[in-house]
Amino acid sequence: MQKAKDTIIVGVDMGGTSLRALVVNKKDKIMAEEKVPTNASQKPSGLISDIAALVEKAVRAAGLKLSDLSAVSIGAPGTIDRRGVVRKAPNLGWKDVPLGHELKALVGVPVVVDNDVNMGVVGEHILGAGGRVDEMAGVFVGTGIGGGIIIGGKLYVGSTGGAGEVGHTVLMVDGPVCSCGHRGCAEALASRTAMERDVRAAVGAGRKSLVTEIMKKRNKQRMTSSVICAALKEKDKVMSEVMERAQYYLGVLVANVVNLLDTERVVIGGGIAERMGEDFAAPIRDTAYEYFLRQSDAHRVKIVPGALGDNAGALGAVVLARQRLGKY
Amino acid sequence: MQKAKDTIIVGVDMGGTSLRALVVNKKDKIMAEEKVPTNASQKPSGLISDIAALVEKAVRAAGLKLSDLSAVSIGAPGTIDRRGVVRKAPNLGWKDVPLGHELKALVGVPVVVDNDVNMGVVGEHILGAGGRVDEMAGVFVGTGIGGGIIIGGKLYVGSTGGAGEVGHTVLMVDGPVCSCGHRGCAEALASRTAMERDVRAAVGAGRKSLVTEIMKKRNKQRMTSSVICAALKEKDKVMSEVMERAQYYLGVLVANVVNLLDTERVVIGGGIAERMGEDFAAPIRDTAYEYFLRQSDAHRVKIVPGALGDNAGALGAVVLARQRLGKY
Repeated sequence: MQKAKDTIIVGVDMGGTSLRALVVNKKDKIMAEEKVPTNASQKPSGLISDIAALVEKAVRAAGLKLSDLSAVSIGAPGTIDRRGVVRKAPNLGWKDVPLGHELKALVGVPVVVDNDVNMGVVGEHILGAGGRVDEMAGVFVGTGIGGGIIIGGKLYVGSTGGAGEVGHTVLMVDGPVCSCGHRGCAEALASRTAMERDVRAAVGAGRKSLVTEIMKKRNKQRMTSSVICAALKEKDKVMSEVMERAQYYLGVLVANVVNLLDTERVVIGGGIAERMGEDFAAPIRDTAYEYFLRQSDAHRVKIVPGALGDNAGALGAVVLARQRLGKY
Repeated sequence: MQKAKDTIIVGVDMGGTSLRALVVNKKDKIMAEEKVPTNASQKPSGLISDIAALVEKAVRAAGLKLSDLSAVSIGAPGTIDRRGVVRKAPNLGWKDVPLGHELKALVGVPVVVDNDVNMGVVGEHILGAGGRVDEMAGVFVGTGIGGGIIIGGKLYVGSTGGAGEVGHTVLMVDGPVCSCGHRGCAEALASRTAMERDVRAAVGAGRKSLVTEIMKKRNKQRMTSSVICAALKEKDKVMSEVMERAQYYLGVLVANVVNLLDTERVVIGGGIAERMGEDFAAPIRDTAYEYFLRQSDAHRVKIVPGALGDNAGALGAVVLARQRLGKY
């Protein structure tokens, strides 16, 4: 039986396709785990009710009550301000939603809110591949490219909570158009979306690739991480070339971050990194080392794939809540 | 007469052409100021003796003795580690020179050493255009492009003292070759050296420009800031176009830094910024605002020209010494 109520936190990851909740005790043990599909078509208050219900379900599954929690901590896909307001979450269609405030009213315990990628970075930093170093950056590659920065062992959020947008740093002035409207952002060069665009362009130009076939067979509308990996396994030439180019850009991106911030570690996270692991990270690392300004000790910087997979966000939410509430 | 000996610091700026020393009291008043040409052809120990002699001369000019100082603080053009060793200073031909240690042996008071651009950024932050905000970045445009980062009101040096290399972040994969050997770094696109290359290329391609004429008239081997300004004043078309393009790249660079670090202010320093002021900063600002990810409150970020001119480095050295020695 659990007693000390300040030791249990529910971490929630608001993904575009599903909401995940982990009930975690102070020894980082996952006591229960629940998941429901994200219904983003409803109003924000509806989705917030779904989250509260999911949290309650997970807590019950752990044999606990809501009042046993010291906090609920949630990573949301968007720009979050310091008071837990979701300023802008394009994938959810949210604007200025006081998520922290509203969820607190439903669950009755303190609520911590931050950007989902920030949460994932904190999770990897403390419980995953980050090794709890003082200065770290996380680069998460998925539909887009997100990131987060650890400075002095803590998440660095910047002057208004918006720091870490590695995906929207420009690597190629006048490069391809990005989801943000500009050209040549890292996201427009090396995200899964960018890779899919490049594969489709190659196929459109008459090159042969197994990708479309694999997508059809697996009934996928998009080139998911699993499709990418299946195509690479079959040594699909188009996919290999596109992946190599993306890894090159990611290497340049990592070098930019290290040249600017002198971090001692960079964790490469997200779905592709989870599936491919070292095969994804190694070429990124090679290019980054090549681009480091300080060549003499380039290898001091560890560039590693994430270790927590899908749990990074929810576990990071738990860790961040402990840090913010002074329980760590 | 000065009494409290812990209030007077000599700030030294080791420029490529001259060494500057400022004797500064605790009210930030410059009590004396001395300058000698930098003789980089001698051994490191010779140059360090020159610095010690300059410091002594400046101290005497202020009516003081070396023992009246609480510290000498020096900005050196290179990579400095946390123990005051100059790891690499290409312009001086230095490698692993224990500047802090050797200078301390000569002057007999604590010596603080950091990168010259970092010092300039600290100077602008506390005494110049930085407004002492919590999160700031400095971008100094000269022969190269250097930078520095303020986080939590303090200089951020990274895990090994190397942070802030904005000039060697890549903005244009496969762009022009940079002094560091890579392609498309900000320095290769928007430094004075890059601008000179572009002006010469235009002239070489048969375009008319006053720049070469102005250089000849002023007996300059290089396209200095004063040459640039003179050509712009004459509405030289090649110079205007090259400047405009450089400002555009600098705007993208500033946006990259802000999207990554969410700083509330960016100070544009260096010789051109000093001469042109707002004329240099305004187009950079316009482009940066356009590239900010968070468009809704882009204008919250102030992007301003430096205010301290040539004194930024030496004044910053004084401020940093106070911070490091706990006197501020």
